[in-house]
Amino acid sequence: DKDLYQDNDLAGVVTGLAWTSVGGEILFIETSLSRGKGGLTLSGQLGEVMKESAITALSYLKAHAERLGVDYRIFNHYDLHVHVPAGAVPKDGPSAGITMLTSMASIFTQRRVKPFIAMTGEITLRGKVLPVGGIKEKILAARRAGVKEIILCVKNRKDVEEVHADYIKDLSFHYVDTVDEVLAAALLPETVSNPMRFVFPEEKKEREESAGLTSVTVL
Amino acid sequence: DKDLYQDNDLAGVVTGLAWTSVGGEILFIETSLSRGKGGLTLSGQLGEVMKESAITALSYLKAHAERLGVDYRIFNHYDLHVHVPAGAVPKDGPSAGITMLTSMASIFTQRRVKPFIAMTGEITLRGKVLPVGGIKEKILAARRAGVKEIILCVKNRKDVEEVHADYIKDLSFHYVDTVDEVLAAALLPETVSNPMRFVFPEEKKEREESAGLTSVTVL
Amino acid sequence: DKDLYQDNDLAGVVTGLAWTSVGGEILFIETSLSRGKGGLTLSGQLGEVMKESAITALSYLKAHAERLGVDYRIFNHYDLHVHVPAGAVPKDGPSAGITMLTSMASIFTQRRVKPFIAMTGEITLRGKVLPVGGIKEKILAARRAGVKEIILCVKNRKDVEEVHADYIKDLSFHYVDTVDEVLAAALLPETVSNPMRFVFPEEKKEREESAGLTSVTVL
Amino acid sequence: DKDLYQDNDLAGVVTGLAWTSVGGEILFIETSLSRGKGGLTLSGQLGEVMKESAITALSYLKAHAERLGVDYRIFNHYDLHVHVPAGAVPKDGPSAGITMLTSMASIFTQRRVKPFIAMTGEITLRGKVLPVGGIKEKILAARRAGVKEIILCVKNRKDVEEVHADYIKDLSFHYVDTVDEVLAAALLPETVSNPMRFVFPEEKKEREESAGLTSVTVL
Amino acid sequence: DKDLYQDNDLAGVVTGLAWTSVGGEILFIETSLSRGKGGLTLSGQLGEVMKESAITALSYLKAHAERLGVDYRIFNHYDLHVHVPAGAVPKDGPSAGITMLTSMASIFTQRRVKPFIAMTGEITLRGKVLPVGGIKEKILAARRAGVKEIILCVKNRKDVEEVHADYIKDLSFHYVDTVDEVLAAALLPETVSNPMRFVFPEEKKEREESAGLTSVTVL
Amino acid sequence: DKDLYQDNDLAGVVTGLAWTSVGGEILFIETSLSRGKGGLTLSGQLGEVMKESAITALSYLKAHAERLGVDYRIFNHYDLHVHVPAGAVPKDGPSAGITMLTSMASIFTQRRVKPFIAMTGEITLRGKVLPVGGIKEKILAARRAGVKEIILCVKNRKDVEEVHADYIKDLSFHYVDTVDEVLAAALLPETVSNPMRFVFPEEKKEREESAGLTSVTVL
Ligand SMILES: [Ca+2]
Ligand SMILES: [Ca+2]
Ligand SMILES: [Ca+2]
Ligand SMILES: [Ca+2]
Ligand SMILES: [Ca+2]
Ligand SMILES: [Ca+2]
Ligand SMILES: [Ca+2]
Ligand SMILES: [Ca+2]
Ligand SMILES: [Ca+2]
Ligand SMILES: [Ca+2]
Ligand SMILES: [Ca+2]
Ligand SMILES: [Ca+2]
Repeated sequence: DKDLYQDNDLAGVVTGLAWTSVGGEILFIETSLSRGKGGLTLSGQLGEVMKESAITALSYLKAHAERLGVDYRIFNHYDLHVHVPAGAVPKDGPSAGITMLTSMASIFTQRRVKPFIAMTGEITLRGKVLPVGGIKEKILAARRAGVKEIILCVKNRKDVEEVHADYIKDLSFHYVDTVDEVLAAALLPETVSNPMRFVFPEEKKEREESAGLTSVTVL
Repeated sequence: DKDLYQDNDLAGVVTGLAWTSVGGEILFIETSLSRGKGGLTLSGQLGEVMKESAITALSYLKAHAERLGVDYRIFNHYDLHVHVPAGAVPKDGPSAGITMLTSMASIFTQRRVKPFIAMTGEITLRGKVLPVGGIKEKILAARRAGVKEIILCVKNRKDVEEVHADYIKDLSFHYVDTVDEVLAAALLPETVSNPMRFVFPEEKKEREESAGLTSVTVL
Repeated sequence: DKDLYQDNDLAGVVTGLAWTSVGGEILFIETSLSRGKGGLTLSGQLGEVMKESAITALSYLKAHAERLGVDYRIFNHYDLHVHVPAGAVPKDGPSAGITMLTSMASIFTQRRVKPFIAMTGEITLRGKVLPVGGIKEKILAARRAGVKEIILCVKNRKDVEEVHADYIKDLSFHYVDTVDEVLAAALLPETVSNPMRFVFPEEKKEREESAGLTSVTVL
Repeated sequence: DKDLYQDNDLAGVVTGLAWTSVGGEILFIETSLSRGKGGLTLSGQLGEVMKESAITALSYLKAHAERLGVDYRIFNHYDLHVHVPAGAVPKDGPSAGITMLTSMASIFTQRRVKPFIAMTGEITLRGKVLPVGGIKEKILAARRAGVKEIILCVKNRKDVEEVHADYIKDLSFHYVDTVDEVLAAALLPETVSNPMRFVFPEEKKEREESAGLTSVTVL
Repeated sequence: DKDLYQDNDLAGVVTGLAWTSVGGEILFIETSLSRGKGGLTLSGQLGEVMKESAITALSYLKAHAERLGVDYRIFNHYDLHVHVPAGAVPKDGPSAGITMLTSMASIFTQRRVKPFIAMTGEITLRGKVLPVGGIKEKILAARRAGVKEIILCVKNRKDVEEVHADYIKDLSFHYVDTVDEVLAAALLPETVSNPMRFVFPEEKKEREESAGLTSVTVL
Repeated sequence: DKDLYQDNDLAGVVTGLAWTSVGGEILFIETSLSRGKGGLTLSGQLGEVMKESAITALSYLKAHAERLGVDYRIFNHYDLHVHVPAGAVPKDGPSAGITMLTSMASIFTQRRVKPFIAMTGEITLRGKVLPVGGIKEKILAARRAGVKEIILCVKNRKDVEEVHADYIKDLSFHYVDTVDEVLAAALLPETVSNPMRFVFPEEKKEREESAGLTSVTVL
């Protein structure tokens, strides 16, 4: 069933929590890298706010690449694609921010995502996590899906405390204030079992130039 | 008649199944490659969801080129065009995802498509196949067209089981969970009879740079 | 009168047949090449389906250049412009597909178009010709214009057979299934009297790189 | 008064005839060249048909540069701007085609435009001149403006013959079928008094590459 | 108060006269140059006609750079930004043409603008000045603002003569026909006190290539 | 609470004051730099006027880089992103101009922002500060948030003087006329504690070329 948690075998696949008019749902953020020149493709009928979240997540990772253990050359020599199934369902809002950022961090570092974890929260460019709505419905959906841990903004703690204890007794919560706390909670230190081997052209210059964000492909 | 299966002489031509307000139909996905620099052209009055499916299929093939036996240099030195006749009929939705991916895989590898096979299913960026609707109507259309094998998502098995046995007695079904299973079922190991010979400029650098997705031409 | 067939002195000018709400009409597809880098310009108030037909025709010619006798370097070092007079009349639909493809093939090869020939039919990317509508009206318009031969899809034969014999006694018909049959029927082996002499920059590399479709200019 | 013919001192300024809902008018097509890389800018609130006319005129001049005495390097090393005053008045339609083409030919060759001449007519990509409407009103406007010669399509001769002889006794008409006849009638063999001196970068390659139409700037 | 004339300390700041539904106003055209490659940015909620005026002004200055004392290399190695405060007020129309051209000429030459001067008039690409409306209201606004000299098209002289003598006794008028007369009246021969020092990369080629108008940034 | 002032540990985070239909609010402008080629990304559901303010702020900083202590190479070798949380809230208007400019100046120089300071005011391209509305509501919001100093245009002094003394007794005001006064009041001379270390490719040319504003990414 599409509402069930899926495994963590692949880098770049992270479970998010969404709110719809008929209740909470889990969703999967998927990212892939292919050789290129720093382009970004966004698909899955994402609305403008959600696309801005993705671009902001990428900017954060680029601005803090060294500290986060990301080889900067990946931004120059690979294209990043972020897709959110199901492809025909329009999606919008800022609450997938931390999920998209975690997905990108996983694909860039090839680190394995912690199993049975899900998350929801807005990010800002400086790396703060902002609270989001629909917490109760999202928790119920996470539980139905078999999720065991949930990452939320500290400012959403009060929303969790309003949920009946029976619904959350099997769940543990990470309340975070920053993106770095999200990554610490969500990514395991080890890589996935078949990590991608990045290849780079031989560098002639002592310090390589960066191409920056060369293109954004959205329809 | 346009509703009849056509032969598998050409790489890149794959039979899909579509659902319209007046019943099921077969459709053909056609792809071609011409020398270029990694551009993608989409035509046939495709809607945004269907165009996103095509872009996602291409990303999957690029991210997994080596494993799938695709020479990476093709992405750098050729342009890909995907067209879906009839040109004046608007088409949309995610269900041509596996058909477009199979068509691209065939043109990139020049492998022959299995004869009398058709398919329908959404793809995701990590290579999962998702179920789609209109299965009964699509099966009827496939049968009318002379199709003998149909590839579907495992989650669509229950929809097939609801179809009267008389309608499916001449058909065999492949129920798949991943894109790789689709390709294993749909592509023969041999190439088409007059395979395209790819030409590449002489490479000066030890490792060639990739241009990535250099342009997307849609109207 | 604008409804009269015109001569075949120029490469790239081909007579098509159109259907409008007030009957059939002939139209002229004009193409020109000027030195550039592989750009394509489309003008004449063409609708999206007709522009997609033009792009599909160009892809076909590029993918099959060698077999069709087109020097590939033209795609790299010239820009192609396709114009359909009259400039203020909106035009759309797929039925000019074979006419645009023939016009492009003529300008690329500088081969003379057969005199007194006209055509109508949709093309697909793999080179099939699909049937189109309005055949009776188009035949009447062709006859009024002085056309003597008409190229149609084999699937339009039944539409011709429904036209009163008096109207078609002076016309001969070519029923085709593929684009290659169109070109065999429509282009003479000889070039026009003052063929364009293509110039190319001196090539340094053993195998020249292709720029692909570098730009599409439409308004 | 804006409805008066102005002098022919400058290359690239040509008098056209327009039809509006309140009668005929003269208009001026102005072109300028500045060092660049082959860009085209169109301004003056031009509608899509009129912009397509300009692009078609430029393609004709590029495809026939050698025969028309235009140094091909100008297309590579200069940007062309076409402006039609007054800047706030929306303008559209194909009838300025021959005027825009003449203006461009004048700026590219620096040849002086014949004094007291005006024109109206559509162009096609192969260089034909097509008839246009509003001939009577345009003739009256030309006469009021002090114009002495008018270039028209031969197919507009019948429209002139319907105008009362008193109105046209001071005017002479050039009835043309092709763009080349327009240029022969409209451009003097001599250059303007202070012709622009074109400068080109030193060429290293034996045959210079062309950049083609590098950009079209319209708002 | 925003309706007061401001000083002429800075190159590129020129006072224009605008007409709004509630009377005349002064406005300031501001331009700046920063190192770049020939891009143009327009801001201040400018309408399409006003943006076309700016692009036309820039084309004029580029086509006549040598005569106007503008070092051509600035167009290649700097980006130009034109802004019209207040930023939230939509503005349109052609009447700021001469003001924008004067502002650009000032920033390119670093020449000081004459103090207490304002202007209004449309420009054309060949350098003519066309008359504009709202003259009476504009004069009243200029007077309130402390302006002492006004540049107008000669064809607007009749509009000034209709204004009551009391309102114009402290003002002097420059009636012009061409852009060159505007610049002669509006720019002082000296530079501003801290002129910008333009820097250019060392030139290897004998004649430098021009990049032309490389981009137009408008939102 | 999102309406509370936050610390000044990070370069590029500056507190602005906004007016909404339900009263005043504080907002945070965030900027980041990542290696690139001079691109600009704007996010946070910014309206066109607000985006034009950001572009104008960047132009000002580029035109005055040397005087403001900004290493010009940053504009060539880094991409700038400006984000305004919360990401789903549409924002527009010119009043964040000085806040965005201060944020950019801080990230480019890595200078620390003064603690407990907030600001509101429009900027112009020549560096003037213009008055804005909603001053009373903005002051109340700033006070609630714990802000101690506020930067305003001198022309907004009269609006402050109309606010009841009790509301402003804990606040000090900086009334400014120019952008330079804003920066003098808002930025401390020291850098933040972990300043970004800018890296540049080795320069071969004596004077480096600038790429200018290479792209603007907005959705
Ligand atoms: Ca569900
Ligand atoms: Ca969309
Ligand atoms: Ca059917
Ligand atoms: Ca479309
Ligand atoms: Ca007709
Ligand atoms: Ca159009
Ligand atoms: Ca008039
Ligand atoms: Ca427009
Ligand atoms: Ca006022
Ligand atoms: Ca706008
Ligand atoms: Ca609040
Ligand atoms: Ca938007």
